[in-house]
Amino acid sequence: MSGMAGKVLIAQGGGPTAVINQSVAGAVLEARRFPQVTRIYGAMHGVRGVINEDFYDLTEVTSHNLNAFADTPSSGLLSTRDKPDVAYCKEIFKVCQAHDIRYFLYCGGNDSADTCRILSEESHKAGYELRVAHVPKTIDNDLLVTDHCPGFGSAAKFVANAFAGANLDNRALPGVYIGIVMGRHAGFLTAAAALAKRYVDDGPHLIYLPERPLTKKQFLDDVTKAYKKHGRCIIAASEGIVDTKGKAIAEQFTGGEKDSHGNVQLSGTGALGDLLAGWIKSGTDIKRVRADTLGYLQRCFLGCVSEVDQTEAREVGEKAAQFAIGHNADGSVAMKRVGDYAIDYFYTPLNTVARKSKEMPAKFINKEGNGVTEAFLAYAGPLTGELPRATRIQAPVVKKILKKK
Amino acid sequence: MSGMAGKVLIAQGGGPTAVINQSVAGAVLEARRFPQVTRIYGAMHGVRGVINEDFYDLTEVTSHNLNAFADTPSSGLLSTRDKPDVAYCKEIFKVCQAHDIRYFLYCGGNDSADTCRILSEESHKAGYELRVAHVPKTIDNDLLVTDHCPGFGSAAKFVANAFAGANLDNRALPGVYIGIVMGRHAGFLTAAAALAKRYVDDGPHLIYLPERPLTKKQFLDDVTKAYKKHGRCIIAASEGIVDTKGKAIAEQFTGGEKDSHGNVQLSGTGALGDLLAGWIKSGTDIKRVRADTLGYLQRCFLGCVSEVDQTEAREVGEKAAQFAIGHNADGSVAMKRVGDYAIDYFYTPLNTVARKSKEMPAKFINKEGNGVTEAFLAYAGPLTGELPRATRIQAPVVKKILKKK
Repeated sequence: MSGMAGKVLIAQGGGPTAVINQSVAGAVLEARRFPQVTRIYGAMHGVRGVINEDFYDLTEVTSHNLNAFADTPSSGLLSTRDKPDVAYCKEIFKVCQAHDIRYFLYCGGNDSADTCRILSEESHKAGYELRVAHVPKTIDNDLLVTDHCPGFGSAAKFVANAFAGANLDNRALPGVYIGIVMGRHAGFLTAAAALAKRYVDDGPHLIYLPERPLTKKQFLDDVTKAYKKHGRCIIAASEGIVDTKGKAIAEQFTGGEKDSHGNVQLSGTGALGDLLAGWIKSGTDIKRVRADTLGYLQRCFLGCVSEVDQTEAREVGEKAAQFAIGHNADGSVAMKRVGDYAIDYFYTPLNTVARKSKEMPAKFINKEGNGVTEAFLAYAGPLTGELPRATRIQAPVVKKILKKK
Repeated sequence: MSGMAGKVLIAQGGGPTAVINQSVAGAVLEARRFPQVTRIYGAMHGVRGVINEDFYDLTEVTSHNLNAFADTPSSGLLSTRDKPDVAYCKEIFKVCQAHDIRYFLYCGGNDSADTCRILSEESHKAGYELRVAHVPKTIDNDLLVTDHCPGFGSAAKFVANAFAGANLDNRALPGVYIGIVMGRHAGFLTAAAALAKRYVDDGPHLIYLPERPLTKKQFLDDVTKAYKKHGRCIIAASEGIVDTKGKAIAEQFTGGEKDSHGNVQLSGTGALGDLLAGWIKSGTDIKRVRADTLGYLQRCFLGCVSEVDQTEAREVGEKAAQFAIGHNADGSVAMKRVGDYAIDYFYTPLNTVARKSKEMPAKFINKEGNGVTEAFLAYAGPLTGELPRATRIQAPVVKKILKKK
């Protein structure tokens, strides 16, 4: 195949995932197959690196290095929280012209898709041929159109294993355990806490998502009931849980620090977990209450990756190169579920993904708003790859001698 | 071999580890080989289960179930924080007599070793033949005599992988990252944060241990210096760090909640991390500061286990059965390092381990008191088994065109 000659530029934006380097490796290796590609560049720190012309030349990276890099979590080309507007995109565009960059592949979430959209529009207006492909990634799993997002499966595996472990710990030394999970507006990752449950009384017993407002009363009622039933209680709560006015419950504790997208800081503090623990300590007679905030480990822990997620992240990178370079088209790579479990990749217009976000559909949330449904487990189960299984001892109980009734 | 006929009782006490069930499996399978063993019981919830006569009969558990159970983190026989005194031990002793229990194997830390010591002494006084073996476990790695403790290697692997991942995340989106690690008086587990460093500028850049008092001034000086050098800074701090008066810095935040051993609650809250983050936010001009408390995941995360630790935990269980049943002796199983890397097991008197605890030796801590030495890495490195290796892209940097100087 031959087409427009020029360079390929690859960059990563937003929060890292465990598999985002797979997408870069996939795109680089695939881009090398096209004769019209003159060089392949990688921007350091996303779009900020583009306007600063901070580029690696990836054309001759060894395949060993590329594959070892692919297996390494977090954005290895480094990332940015910059969210380009039209003026910023014009700067990017100038750099692309200066370096004869004809293909721009950007790994990121819906903000990055929006950057791609603006770049695509500006290049059309200017009559400069620039193909722009958005390569999806986000642990939040909140992109539209696609069945799910690369990065989610591995983060979901981490969360599932974390809660399965906390459940075992809490069985051994009973009490209430609260785990706070990432996810500002979408509860997918928090819901993943349920994926490694095995025995009927395994936790998490309660799951609170940003999609359903939470009152202190409901929370305490739920906890008291679960604790009475199991003699213990495991709670998974999203960092983004809101009160009945739609305000993030965590917001009051973070001093209102905002990122460049205007989002209030939710992660990197244990305040929400401690607040919920305080509610239980003051509102019930339960003595042992512990709260963990899973924090940044969810998206970057070394050695916890879904093999399914790994493969798919690699493939969306390959597909982005094929669609942009081979088919000479702009768009965002998306996934369609075509079997149990099988995926097809397709290209969707940038404006169908840009800026918008998806929440958990109602069918994935139980009626009480404190748990997930079988439909969610069927949806998310295949994405984590195989999970370790916790096993209890299966042994008869001995008759008492001294305390027999 | 034949000896005193009777039942074997196995129990687990204190905080869970990822491999404590290996020790139970090892002890059960080994105990089955002795013809004088009439049945093998497992107490639910440690010594509390003993006085309540809550026993599983483990004599006929299938080997498949036992091995799957062994691979499952956390105390599968369930645990307790009860710390028996002489009166409590006499209750245990009565139950042992009633059930014809002649061998008691107790997995735990130095408190559990003390329970074993009292039981051993009381049985001698009463003329009741009871063999008592302490099976060591603790993620804190603070037992005397033994080279290291089963449970530490897996927790160290978790901590090493957590910081290696946080380092990658922080490289992509620079700032200050603080991770709070378990360990009340001993810094071994916090020090393990350094085990997965690969590149020269990898974090953690600063490590604070309970063995060295910390002042706010030193902390801010260290952070400012590291941040200036690297443009970012990763800090590992023990939950047990103390001020110059030896008081736990975390103590003021936890409301003074104490467990039955009189220990103040340090885990299960994000307060210490938030305090240190607050020091940096108010004392420097660094904008992006994040704190995670690694919490209970350190000792129970599903799917992060050291194969070396697994093997050793299994073997200390086997050895406890051999020493107590085969050699008809009381003691605590300990490890001696006899090669790089190889271990021998031996039996040490209960009073050499009971109650006492070990801190990090001075040779493992750097002069500045904010990092670890090569000697520590050589000591702890083999215990985690193989760690995943983070790999950076190796590519030349492209010359700027628009911004060339």
